[in-house]
Amino acid sequence: MQLQTQYEKCIEACLECLEACNYCFRSCLEEEDVSMMTGCIRLDRECADACQLAITAMQTNSPHVKEICQLVATICAACADECAKHDHEHCKQCAEACRNCAEACEEMVASLN
Amino acid sequence: MQLQTQYEKCIEACLECLEACNYCFRSCLEEEDVSMMTGCIRLDRECADACQLAITAMQTNSPHVKEICQLVATICAACADECAKHDHEHCKQCAEACRNCAEACEEMVASLN
Amino acid sequence: MQLQTQYEKCIEACLECLEACNYCFRSCLEEEDVSMMTGCIRLDRECADACQLAITAMQTNSPHVKEICQLVATICAACADECAKHDHEHCKQCAEACRNCAEACEEMVASLN
Amino acid sequence: MQLQTQYEKCIEACLECLEACNYCFRSCLEEEDVSMMTGCIRLDRECADACQLAITAMQTNSPHVKEICQLVATICAACADECAKHDHEHCKQCAEACRNCAEACEEMVASLN
Repeated sequence: MQLQTQYEKCIEACLECLEACNYCFRSCLEEEDVSMMTGCIRLDRECADACQLAITAMQTNSPHVKEICQLVATICAACADECAKHDHEHCKQCAEACRNCAEACEEMVASLN
Repeated sequence: MQLQTQYEKCIEACLECLEACNYCFRSCLEEEDVSMMTGCIRLDRECADACQLAITAMQTNSPHVKEICQLVATICAACADECAKHDHEHCKQCAEACRNCAEACEEMVASLN
Repeated sequence: MQLQTQYEKCIEACLECLEACNYCFRSCLEEEDVSMMTGCIRLDRECADACQLAITAMQTNSPHVKEICQLVATICAACADECAKHDHEHCKQCAEACRNCAEACEEMVASLN
Repeated sequence: MQLQTQYEKCIEACLECLEACNYCFRSCLEEEDVSMMTGCIRLDRECADACQLAITAMQTNSPHVKEICQLVATICAACADECAKHDHEHCKQCAEACRNCAEACEEMVASLN
């Protein structure tokens, strides 16, 4: 597939973040201490939705990639902060994927300035 | 439904914009001069997706309503500018719905500062 | 907006179901007994996503409205059954909106046969 | 990431289909003969949206994976048929990705019976 090379790394980071958020979402719902996980559950969903928007924007070469990636960076950072509060393996993985995605999105935004 | 009253007007504007963009999307695809409508088609899809994200954010009382509404305002303004170039009734309706939505989103952003 | 009249009632039911599911999603996350609400939380999200797909399909006059509405009817019925187990007002409202939407979708499917 | 192994192949096929559809969507909009591509443009968008729903369903271990994958198989088959009518490289790639995804979804559905 001849995707614009400039987007490849950021798309990859969004795809990994999407997977991590969806996996954390359903894993949180299966935890015994689910009342501790409501912040994660809410942010996992929002972060997954935002990543989907960014993936679509980059794959369709949208004129709003910059603004969308800026939003995703913000939401990913919030989701990472929340997930980092918990010791569950899925939360730790999600925090890392969100941090990577936030960084990739920030780099994308900077490159488009 | 006990939706947060502060969001009601903006959700309504997003719902109308979503409908106008989806109707314009499919109507553009049925126009004879479709080669003139490619900008509309692309932006109609993106604007509809962004409105869906904003509707979800407001209906779920997301902590990122402000950032999401700012993005939607930007995309709506671009979609309105593109649709305003055309005389098709669906484009004129879409331009108006996008302008209304951009304004409602800007007001929402301002109210959250 | 000149929407196809045949879809109006079903779109309206999907929009109400979307709102009820999103409202129930975030209300469940705020309940004290959130461990009882995990089934609702999961289904509320899925039902909202499915309704968004159906709204887009009808508003864009998709050739797959029938198949998509059939899926939505199935997911709405499951979400209604889950929400009906709980006495929270948001769950009761959501169960009713899901039942109405399932019925509207079934009618749509039948009308397209 | 500990994704359910049974879903891995189907998620991968959906991700490739999503990328191919989004790339075909924007490439069709840039073709000179865009009036020939309206069927592709419409189905590319719908197929991408359906794949996103399926990816989310599998990654969150939804109880409706079977029904959602059945829908995706139907939409992918239609999108493949449409794209296969055209000689553009992006259409040929998209047709192949859609056929692979339809097949992976059918296998998933069969395995869940």
